[in-house]
Amino acid sequence: MYPYHLIDSIRKQNPLIHNITNIVVANDSANGLLAIGASPFMSSASEEMKEVAALASATVLNTGTLSSEQLEAMRLVGQHANELSKPVVIDPVGVGATAFRKQAISRLLTEAKPSLIRGNAGEIAALAEIEWESKGVDAGNGSGDIILAAEITAKKYHTFVSVSGETDIITDGDTTYFVDNGTSYFTSMTGAGCLLSCLCGAFLSVADDKSLEAVVAANCSYAVAGELAAADLSGLSVGSFRNNLLDVLSQLSSSQVEQMAKIRRKNG
Amino acid sequence: MYPYHLIDSIRKQNPLIHNITNIVVANDSANGLLAIGASPFMSSASEEMKEVAALASATVLNTGTLSSEQLEAMRLVGQHANELSKPVVIDPVGVGATAFRKQAISRLLTEAKPSLIRGNAGEIAALAEIEWESKGVDAGNGSGDIILAAEITAKKYHTFVSVSGETDIITDGDTTYFVDNGTSYFTSMTGAGCLLSCLCGAFLSVADDKSLEAVVAANCSYAVAGELAAADLSGLSVGSFRNNLLDVLSQLSSSQVEQMAKIRRKNG
Amino acid sequence: MYPYHLIDSIRKQNPLIHNITNIVVANDSANGLLAIGASPFMSSASEEMKEVAALASATVLNTGTLSSEQLEAMRLVGQHANELSKPVVIDPVGVGATAFRKQAISRLLTEAKPSLIRGNAGEIAALAEIEWESKGVDAGNGSGDIILAAEITAKKYHTFVSVSGETDIITDGDTTYFVDNGTSYFTSMTGAGCLLSCLCGAFLSVADDKSLEAVVAANCSYAVAGELAAADLSGLSVGSFRNNLLDVLSQLSSSQVEQMAKIRRKNG
Repeated sequence: MYPYHLIDSIRKQNPLIHNITNIVVANDSANGLLAIGASPFMSSASEEMKEVAALASATVLNTGTLSSEQLEAMRLVGQHANELSKPVVIDPVGVGATAFRKQAISRLLTEAKPSLIRGNAGEIAALAEIEWESKGVDAGNGSGDIILAAEITAKKYHTFVSVSGETDIITDGDTTYFVDNGTSYFTSMTGAGCLLSCLCGAFLSVADDKSLEAVVAANCSYAVAGELAAADLSGLSVGSFRNNLLDVLSQLSSSQVEQMAKIRRKNG
Repeated sequence: MYPYHLIDSIRKQNPLIHNITNIVVANDSANGLLAIGASPFMSSASEEMKEVAALASATVLNTGTLSSEQLEAMRLVGQHANELSKPVVIDPVGVGATAFRKQAISRLLTEAKPSLIRGNAGEIAALAEIEWESKGVDAGNGSGDIILAAEITAKKYHTFVSVSGETDIITDGDTTYFVDNGTSYFTSMTGAGCLLSCLCGAFLSVADDKSLEAVVAANCSYAVAGELAAADLSGLSVGSFRNNLLDVLSQLSSSQVEQMAKIRRKNG
Repeated sequence: MYPYHLIDSIRKQNPLIHNITNIVVANDSANGLLAIGASPFMSSASEEMKEVAALASATVLNTGTLSSEQLEAMRLVGQHANELSKPVVIDPVGVGATAFRKQAISRLLTEAKPSLIRGNAGEIAALAEIEWESKGVDAGNGSGDIILAAEITAKKYHTFVSVSGETDIITDGDTTYFVDNGTSYFTSMTGAGCLLSCLCGAFLSVADDKSLEAVVAANCSYAVAGELAAADLSGLSVGSFRNNLLDVLSQLSSSQVEQMAKIRRKNG
């Protein structure tokens, strides 16, 4: 039903996933991609973005420590990837936090068409321009309708949207899925969402149909990995959870995910 | 006596701590802040420093991989934080190593008034301009009077000073405290001091009186966490200590710290 | 026979190893250097490269996330290190991936004479300009003669060359050694090769004769550490392997390496 088998495709095809990302999460993102069977490549040198877009099977752009130079490289690689019909995932970290990020990301979303925008509730609310109480790069708490926000954003940018939270929301604006797997440990590990963006890039890169369901499978696989990583922990343990998560991703199988998956589809 | 309860305040208030830091320690600093209950934000884009200073409850500036661009962002965010009376912690990594760092940090200390300078003995000796044998970013060994150096630096820059070592020294130039807790494992984990600077920022951000004792409590809490993280290790274990430290910080309680604290006050 | 005792020299002399490296591996490289007993220093500010070359016992230049600014700093520090006859290790990450990297690294190799080039098969094949099937920063698979490629590269650049793989190849173009130790876990940890480059820098820095055999000892020590780190793992475990590797490096002794070493010398 859902293409969990894409895990096996990643392990077999070993797709090169290009990342422009931040100094905080770069290591975990690279190790997480290796753990699931993909091959990470990190570069933000504008001089090589055309070649990198051609080499990579997908590109993941993360604005966690955005600079003007990085933005220029993101635009370039995004446009080249668009031309080559390769998936582009944009993780608009902190888009609601400052005017600089808002303008930069707005420009990026217009000039490099994403296949998927993946963020937390605060970020997607900011993109949808609905009311939301957020702070920095946190998800925050809002009384707004985050499902609606995701759908608005998807339609506005003609893209898939994935919102991470207790329940993940994945939508193309018309069809909307919910993943009820996961663990609160994710919120206490820096870069947990960033790594999910990378994995979404890996899943999309090996999915022939580049379908919304490939993103659902990526979200669900990662959420299940989180549950397994948290299983033997008692109380918050930032170090061990991170370690466990990389271990679990290394051995995660499609059948494990299928067995534990809790996915709902909205009656639209 | 000492405000260990600030740990509880951090966990409750979840303050946003802004960091301009280096590529080596960014991940551990972010995870350590999450572990103690704060929320990390990392940015060194000058374009957003004004907004970030307003959003953050404290700013921590670390010169570990300093560049001219980063220095400009540090000056901007430091000045804005000063205007808003928000704590600024400066971690002058490697200040004694090169003329570039010395000049840059000297300018930073003048143009952005810190609430706290936290460094190792070599760094504080360099700021106090006393004789000291150091190397790169290490603490080094000196025959000079490091207590005096800390007090001189505090008076020179009208700020608190915290010196990490076997015994931590915390002073405002007049009153001086010593924390005898800690572990030698700290010296074999890159970024151990950098993370303490972040935690000092978090403690100061939730301390209404922004007192010297809040810095003492931060130093002591971290040193106790180090002791607990080292407790079950035999022999140097760089990987496990780092992992344990993040786990211990995740669950550290104010009563635990109070029970284990070894603090002395200098009869001035 | 092989100078494994250099481990003891590192632990005793605590050499300062300067690194210009990428945002992905900086933390592991620093912790790995600390674990073996060296002292890491990271800086890519051109303004301080002259002083840093003088302070450091060796310099390691890694092009994993190369930018034009970084390249300029690499050239400067490399030239200063050359003048001071201090070892320079170049890790040409991704040299075969893009024209930007190829030109940059080619210029670097000409203007800053390395003591050692350490890379994977794909990178060394690219430098030797032999046929090789590679992708991004991975080693790839080639039908070409990688031993010959290493020897060609060594002669071309008048330097030692170390190629990491199932069997490591270490050559000066005339004499060639093979290290049969190691573990496939290395290929699933980002920055595993980068850390080896750092350790080669540390070994060379304390070797009076700066001999090829010092590089053999570094490769073998690291490969043995990998075997020990993998010993209690079953199945791929990216998190635990990384953790174990830092722990093992912390306690590795020269006698342990000597006992486990599997080194062959080519009959030339």
